[in-house]
Order: sequence, then structure tokens, then C-alpha cells
Amino acid sequence: MNTTAPDPSRRDATGFSTARLEAFSDGVFAIAITLLVLDLNVPEPDSLHGESLAGALAHQWPSYFAYLVSFLVIGIIWINHHAMCALARRVDRRTLFANLFLLLTVSVIPYPTRLLATYLTAGDTDAHTAAAVYAATMVAMGLAFSLLFLSFTRDARALHTPVPRADVNAAMRRFSLGGLAYLATIGIAFLSPVAMLATHALLAVYYCFDQLAPVRRTPVTPR
Amino acid sequence: MNTTAPDPSRRDATGFSTARLEAFSDGVFAIAITLLVLDLNVPEPDSLHGESLAGALAHQWPSYFAYLVSFLVIGIIWINHHAMCALARRVDRRTLFANLFLLLTVSVIPYPTRLLATYLTAGDTDAHTAAAVYAATMVAMGLAFSLLFLSFTRDARALHTPVPRADVNAAMRRFSLGGLAYLATIGIAFLSPVAMLATHALLAVYYCFDQLAPVRRTPVTPR
Amino acid sequence: MNTTAPDPSRRDATGFSTARLEAFSDGVFAIAITLLVLDLNVPEPDSLHGESLAGALAHQWPSYFAYLVSFLVIGIIWINHHAMCALARRVDRRTLFANLFLLLTVSVIPYPTRLLATYLTAGDTDAHTAAAVYAATMVAMGLAFSLLFLSFTRDARALHTPVPRADVNAAMRRFSLGGLAYLATIGIAFLSPVAMLATHALLAVYYCFDQLAPVRRTPVTPR
Amino acid sequence: MNTTAPDPSRRDATGFSTARLEAFSDGVFAIAITLLVLDLNVPEPDSLHGESLAGALAHQWPSYFAYLVSFLVIGIIWINHHAMCALARRVDRRTLFANLFLLLTVSVIPYPTRLLATYLTAGDTDAHTAAAVYAATMVAMGLAFSLLFLSFTRDARALHTPVPRADVNAAMRRFSLGGLAYLATIGIAFLSPVAMLATHALLAVYYCFDQLAPVRRTPVTPR
Repeated sequence: MNTTAPDPSRRDATGFSTARLEAFSDGVFAIAITLLVLDLNVPEPDSLHGESLAGALAHQWPSYFAYLVSFLVIGIIWINHHAMCALARRVDRRTLFANLFLLLTVSVIPYPTRLLATYLTAGDTDAHTAAAVYAATMVAMGLAFSLLFLSFTRDARALHTPVPRADVNAAMRRFSLGGLAYLATIGIAFLSPVAMLATHALLAVYYCFDQLAPVRRTPVTPR
Repeated sequence: MNTTAPDPSRRDATGFSTARLEAFSDGVFAIAITLLVLDLNVPEPDSLHGESLAGALAHQWPSYFAYLVSFLVIGIIWINHHAMCALARRVDRRTLFANLFLLLTVSVIPYPTRLLATYLTAGDTDAHTAAAVYAATMVAMGLAFSLLFLSFTRDARALHTPVPRADVNAAMRRFSLGGLAYLATIGIAFLSPVAMLATHALLAVYYCFDQLAPVRRTPVTPR
Repeated sequence: MNTTAPDPSRRDATGFSTARLEAFSDGVFAIAITLLVLDLNVPEPDSLHGESLAGALAHQWPSYFAYLVSFLVIGIIWINHHAMCALARRVDRRTLFANLFLLLTVSVIPYPTRLLATYLTAGDTDAHTAAAVYAATMVAMGLAFSLLFLSFTRDARALHTPVPRADVNAAMRRFSLGGLAYLATIGIAFLSPVAMLATHALLAVYYCFDQLAPVRRTPVTPR
Repeated sequence: MNTTAPDPSRRDATGFSTARLEAFSDGVFAIAITLLVLDLNVPEPDSLHGESLAGALAHQWPSYFAYLVSFLVIGIIWINHHAMCALARRVDRRTLFANLFLLLTVSVIPYPTRLLATYLTAGDTDAHTAAAVYAATMVAMGLAFSLLFLSFTRDARALHTPVPRADVNAAMRRFSLGGLAYLATIGIAFLSPVAMLATHALLAVYYCFDQLAPVRRTPVTPR
């Protein structure tokens, strides 16, 4: 009889531990969310042309607004990613790729954020283009998150606790609802870029209310 | 009877483990503190106009000063964040959001640092504006840290050891004192930006003396 | 008699734990993959010269293409690095250096990516040069990965399970095949930079099919 | 009697676990080593003035040389930091600050690297200045590493195994020797910046030979 505790760093022979998936993902989330600050430009002293620094900073409000929304979005995705990973005991190669797709959509976010900050108050057409690119990135991100959720839950043996099919379906319905809202923001982008950004701030708050809650709260069976 | 040691990677069914909160936070702290180096500009050879490189570097002292103070501030926050996390066994969603707010204020620090480095020796008004923005960021950061501390200590069941209410109150009084000092630096910013920066260096040293010490040193009960 | 479970953070007295090797490597992989986004340029409003933003973005397709391929390449290396580290129980100093060489080739990838994005549609000769630099970086990366694999598998005592020599040889043959393909892309770079990039996308997909699978799937002996 | 294995995430009541110290340090090391790539400039197509890209890249050899040496230096520090942390069971607040000082000197390295790459082939005086700044950064880094080593070894109770005083003294003598060599490179910087850089490459190789080996190889007593 083996009374020695299992080595927690030992990997399951038939899959990958979630520990390193989370470590790598945490790294990408942390870097993407922190790189956003590079999108905030300090006005060059020579470019003020007599305007005060306070005035120049005030004119940069689109940068701050886009920064805040993107920070909130990445932060919420991280929290939900955290909740999702807590469901699984091990992951297979397919899940690693689904996760890589999500990380692609997350790590690219500083780019549409910079684009939107630059063009939010530019001429109409270009502001609409920048806003549509931003909204489309969010659609791709939402899609990637849903695919990853499906990948996490499809293999019941990999979960700490089997998640009832009904709960998965309910979560997917909520994701789909969010996905439709995300899609709608592409349309809003052509009406009002500022409204598009505000909608994403609201959607992030919506996702705060723990869309995964019913799944995660399934009582843990004794092990 | 189960004599096997608990799997340390298992999550508490009714909350989040602090492990991944710390991993993500460590990532953001580490990136924010390292991105500060991008704010140090190498003078372009063409822009020296006959001045020696040594002279040009010496003129950049505001960049080095701001870099050092911001590095120290982020480093001290990390150490105190470390001490605070050691108090908790698990965290709830509210704490994750309080932590996200702290990370927002930390990860934005490279921006006011760059702003201050650019304008510290510029004309009076703009230097005051830049210094006030820097000081206001620190106020927001101090506020976020206090909120996070409250969130960590409010749920006694989540702590390794219940922290006496008196100790929490004592810590909050010390935080408030620090918060008042932070607020005062906004005023100092309008008198002397350099003095404002020096005050933040001193405040960081003040926070070195382990403001959380009495709480953390509460004897650990046998488990 | 000591019935206490071993402290999982204890290091083997005769080598380094793989835990911190993985933590540091995950950090470098995560940062390199996320820094790629800084290579995506937002067109300056002043530089559009009457062109629409949508048109200017469409002209940047080489940047997006290079970004996607490099993201995929780094992601696949990470997944295979993950699989390789799962083989080992501890690593020696030689493996740390082999790993450092791999990290050098990975962390430099944003540079040839930026170079290729800038010159992919430039005049023929410079596009060929940029593409050859990109392909040569991938050759160096493939070489470093093979050296690291050899270093990981040469010391049988360091592995969770001894890997049969035949399996190591089979893996090395597959690596060599991939290495030859990588070398060939340097030639392709001089014919068509776009074809070179497409080939690397295909090679990344080839490496998706878990080149380490036979080694990793060796049944785990009872411990 | 408690037969349950200790929770590995539990912190020692009288100190900090080394786990999070290492996580934060690994983050800073990983980011600093990866940010070096931002110092490699892609020549602007407009700035070639008829020169081929291959020629322009060849002229950038100081950038590649400085990149390689700094990458090697940070990588070696990381490996030795790793070996040092393996000695300790817990660290006190003083060690956290000594570590923060080391991280300051490590995370600033991309700056003197960029400075040196820009001025290595510039006029004599400025090249000497840039080289001296680079060498001085390395002196500060070596000093910080020695302080951290002293801090790690001074509290015998915090070590997995008490390290004989003679071994600590021997390690400190080797550090001092290295420190003198580092100091000497400041002088070399004024003779030949290229020789200064080559010396640091050689010193990094010297430090490869595990200066901490005798300390680390002290047999582990049964626990």
C-alpha cells in the first residue's frame, strides 16, 4: 500500500496537467492587460503648440476610455478563464489548441484598442472602421471562449466533477446570447463608435455575473 | 479512511484558490515594473547637437528619478500584496474584482511615470499638471489597496487564521494615514513636482516597515 | 519513520527541479507571443493622404500574415516544450543552457517578424533578404529544440519513465525531417517570401500532430 | 498526531515562502530578457538611401552583439538565482528587499543595452560613455547579487541545510573576484567598447561554471 502523497507535479499519463496551461495563459493575460498602457501616449512638449498639458491630456479621453474598456474586458475574461480551468483535471491536445485560439484573440486586443484610440474622434468613416475592427475582435474572442468551454466540458472524464449536460447547455445559451450582443456591436460601431465602446463596457459588467456559476457550483462529490 | 495528502492543486468548491490570483497578479506586477525601462529614452545621435552623450544623459535625471521612485513603489506594493495574500485561504469573486482594480492602478503607473519624466523640468504649469496626475495615480492605487485589504479580511472563514477586528482596524488606520499623505502629495505637486516625487520615495520607505505586520504575526493556530 | 508526504517544493539535491525551468520558459514564451502585437502598426491619421483607414489596413496584410504565422509557431513550440518537460523529473545544468538557447531563438522571433512585415511587399531583393532572415531564425529554433530534446532524454535517471532508445531515435528522425523542411524554406525565401511564410504555417500544423507522442505515451511504470 | 501532509501552499508564520519570490523574480527575468528584442531596430525602407537591406542589417552588428551579451548575462543570472533560491526554505523581509535591488539592476539592462547598441560605433567619446554606463550597470548587478547571496545565507534556520561558513566565504571570494573583473570592465570601456562587451561575454561564460556549486552540493541531511 502506498501511503505517500502523490507528487503534485506529476502529469497525468494520458493528458496535460492544467497547471502549465494556466501558467502560460496567466502570462499572456497579464502581459496583454499590461501592454495596454503602451497605447497611452504622452504628448510631446513640442507638439502642444501653446496648448496646456492639461488640455492636451483632456483631448486624449478616447485613449483612456478605450484603455479602461479593454482592461475590463481582459480582466473579466481572465476571471472566467480561471473559473473554467477550475472545472478540469486534465486537458487534451484539442483543448490546448482551443486555448491557443483564445490567447490569440486576447493578445491582439492592444492593437484594436490603439486603433480605436487613434481614430475614435477622427472623421466619421475611419472612426466607424476602427470601431468595427474593435467589435469584430471581441466577437472572435467570444467565439474562442465558447469553443474552449465546449472543449473543456465535452470530455466528462477530465472534469473534477461531471457537469450535467443541462448545465452545459444553459451556459452555452448564455454564451450565445452574449455572442449575439457582441455581433450587434459591429452594427453599433457604424452608428456610433462611442456607443459601441460603452456597450462593451456594459457587456463586461454583464459577464461579471459569473456566467459559469451554475456549472462551477455543482456540488463536489467526495473523492 | 483517506490517509492520502490532499491534492494541493484542488480548488475550494466555494471560492477561488489564491494560487492563480497570485500568479496573475505577480505577472502584472512583474510586467509593470519591467515596462518602466521603456520610459528611459536613449538620446538620438542626431539630436545631440554637439553636446556630449554624458551631458545628454545627465540632463535626463528626471527620467531616472521617476523610474527609481515608480520601481520602488511597485516593488513595495508587490511585497505588501504578497503579505496580504498569505492571510487568505480562498477568495471570492468580490476580492477578484478588488484585486483587478488594484492591478489597473498598478499597470497604469508607467504612463504617469513617462508623463512626469517628460514634463518634470518643463514650464511650471505643465510640470505641475504632470506631477498632479502622478500623485493622483498613487492616491487611486492606495485606495485600491485599502479596498482589497478590506475585501480580504471581511470574510473570516476565508482566512488561515481569523484576524482580530482590532488588528484590522489598526491596519486600516495606518492605511488611512498613508492615504492622507498620498492625498497631500497632490497639493505638493502644485508647489514642487520634485518634492512630490521625493515624498513618494519617502512614503514607499514608510510602507517598507510592514504595515500589515501585526495582522500577519497573529499566531497560527494548530490545524 | 517519516510518514509525512514530501514537500513538493523541495529540490532534488543533484539537479534542478523542472518547475522553475517551466515557469521561466512559460514567461518567455508568453511574453514573446504577446509582444508580437507591438509589430502591428496603427496607420498615422496624417499618413493616410486621402486613403480610407480600411484601405490602409488592407494594405497591411503582410503584417497580419506574419503575426499569425509567428503566433502559431511560438504557440506550437510552447505545446511541444510542455510535452517534453513532462518527460523529466529533474534537469541538469547542461539542459538549462540548452533551454536558454531555445529561449533565445524564441524571444528573438518578434524581430524577424517585424522585419518581414516591413519588407514582404517591398522590392524583390530586400523582401528575399527579410524572408531568408525569418527562415534562418526558424532553422535556429528547430535546431535548439532538437538539442534540448537530446539533452532531456540522454540522462535516463532524470526521466519519470526511461524512454526506449528506439523511441528517441524515431523522434530525432522526425525532428531531422522537420529540420530539413525548415532549411528548405531558406531557399523558398529567395523564390517567394509569401510562399516561405505559408510553408511555415503548414510546418506548424505538421508539428501539431504531436511529434513527441510515441515517447510521451510510453506506459508509466508504477512508482 | 497529524498524519496529513502539510499543505505546500501554507506560508511559514515567521517568513515568506520562496515560491512567490521566485514567481515574481522569474517574471521580471523573463520580461527583461524578452524586452531586449525591442532594442533591435528594423531599418525603415525610406532610410536605406539605395543601400540594400542586407547591407543595412550588417551595419547593425553592434545591436546584435549587445543583444546576445545581455541575453546571456540575464540568462546566467537567472540560472544562478535559481540555484541560490534552492538553498532557502523561507526568506525574511530583508531578503525581499535585497532581491528587489537585484531585480532593479536586471530590469534596467535593456536600457544600457539600447544605449550601447546606438553608440558602439559612434564617435569615440560617446562610445566610451555608453560602454561605461553598460559596465557600471553590470557592476551594480554583481553587487546586488552578492548582497542577496549574503542575505540568503546569513540566517541558517532559513536554509534547507545549514551551509558551512567556509563554503559561504569561498563563494564570497569567488563573487569578489568576479566583482573586481566587472569593475575592471569600466576601465576597459574607455579603451575599447567592443573589448568591454566581449569581456562581459567571457565573464558570463565564467559564471556558467556554477559559482554556487560547492554550497549547493552540500549533502542534504535526512529531514
